[in-house]
Amino acid sequence: MTENDRLPRQIEFLVEIDKLKQVYRQTWLMDQSRLENDAEHSWHLAVLAVVLAEYAAGPDLDLVKVLKMVLIHDLVEIDAGDTYAYDTDSQRDQAQRERKAADRLFHILPPDQAAEFRAYWDEFDARETPEACYAAALDRLQPLLHNYHTQGKAWREHGITSDRVFERNSPAADGAPVLWQYAEGLIRDAVEKGYLAK
Amino acid sequence: MTENDRLPRQIEFLVEIDKLKQVYRQTWLMDQSRLENDAEHSWHLAVLAVVLAEYAAGPDLDLVKVLKMVLIHDLVEIDAGDTYAYDTDSQRDQAQRERKAADRLFHILPPDQAAEFRAYWDEFDARETPEACYAAALDRLQPLLHNYHTQGKAWREHGITSDRVFERNSPAADGAPVLWQYAEGLIRDAVEKGYLAK
Repeated sequence: MTENDRLPRQIEFLVEIDKLKQVYRQTWLMDQSRLENDAEHSWHLAVLAVVLAEYAAGPDLDLVKVLKMVLIHDLVEIDAGDTYAYDTDSQRDQAQRERKAADRLFHILPPDQAAEFRAYWDEFDARETPEACYAAALDRLQPLLHNYHTQGKAWREHGITSDRVFERNSPAADGAPVLWQYAEGLIRDAVEKGYLAK
Repeated sequence: MTENDRLPRQIEFLVEIDKLKQVYRQTWLMDQSRLENDAEHSWHLAVLAVVLAEYAAGPDLDLVKVLKMVLIHDLVEIDAGDTYAYDTDSQRDQAQRERKAADRLFHILPPDQAAEFRAYWDEFDARETPEACYAAALDRLQPLLHNYHTQGKAWREHGITSDRVFERNSPAADGAPVLWQYAEGLIRDAVEKGYLAK
């Protein structure tokens, strides 16, 4: 790669990722008009990261790293597709599909940025650093808010029960204990209101 | 407001801004299947901000500030609607409509965050700091990429000419000179290819 290739490769990547706007999730918009896509979800997570930063576990959160992680965490779904959180069949080869996608997508970028983005994606996936744990907590809380505010539309469609929702969302406990406490209340309330089966 | 109100107000704000996913712009997705919405646009801008940071004018860019600005810059359009960049009629009362929207939306948040978000939004709007100039440059470049890669679909629909596109995009020159140079090349190429009228 010459220096002259750098900006064209960056632009090519930025054009390619437009496809994230066409990857639809199993989450309904709050007004129930249609399913949410990954680009909207990633934007929403980034705003959550800013607004709720005070609840992140650990003293010295690197917010810019959190933002980079949530902005790119679903890019692999351009190739690998969205794997529903409660679809255990698709989850079997999810990791392999997503690694292959990461190899293709991030390497459109110049090598230094490809490595940087891959490292953020791996860090998010490993869920070991405070930033990754906080990002994971937000990635659980956001669809929970959607499910709650759509009277459990996606939960009911997929026959999801509260024990699976508790299990799925428990990683939030590490990354943001206060938010997990809030989420627990929401799940219990959803059961009480009949949005979610026990 | 008591301490107990803080998280509920933050959550209420995060639920309210879901509406940004329903504010459609005059920009076609790269595959021309539908118009882009403001949430997708804001996400795309944030990724541009990360990938293209090296081209920002000035030595010490505060990237987290740029990210906060681009993530929230269009929230006011939830109430005020999208004003097309080339619609001079709607632009007449745009500032007033958007200020009213900012007053309502940001004040759902706790007072400290309401003030912080309003300050970022004002800073973006004033386009005086290096961060705001860089953010403005991205906000011009992103729809330009969309127009170019859709063979000028929106330009042709609205009868836009190249002099107006040059004028509209020139703020990019201050915030990121290299990107503006790139944008100029793209506009000239678009004219040559017949995507954009002279």
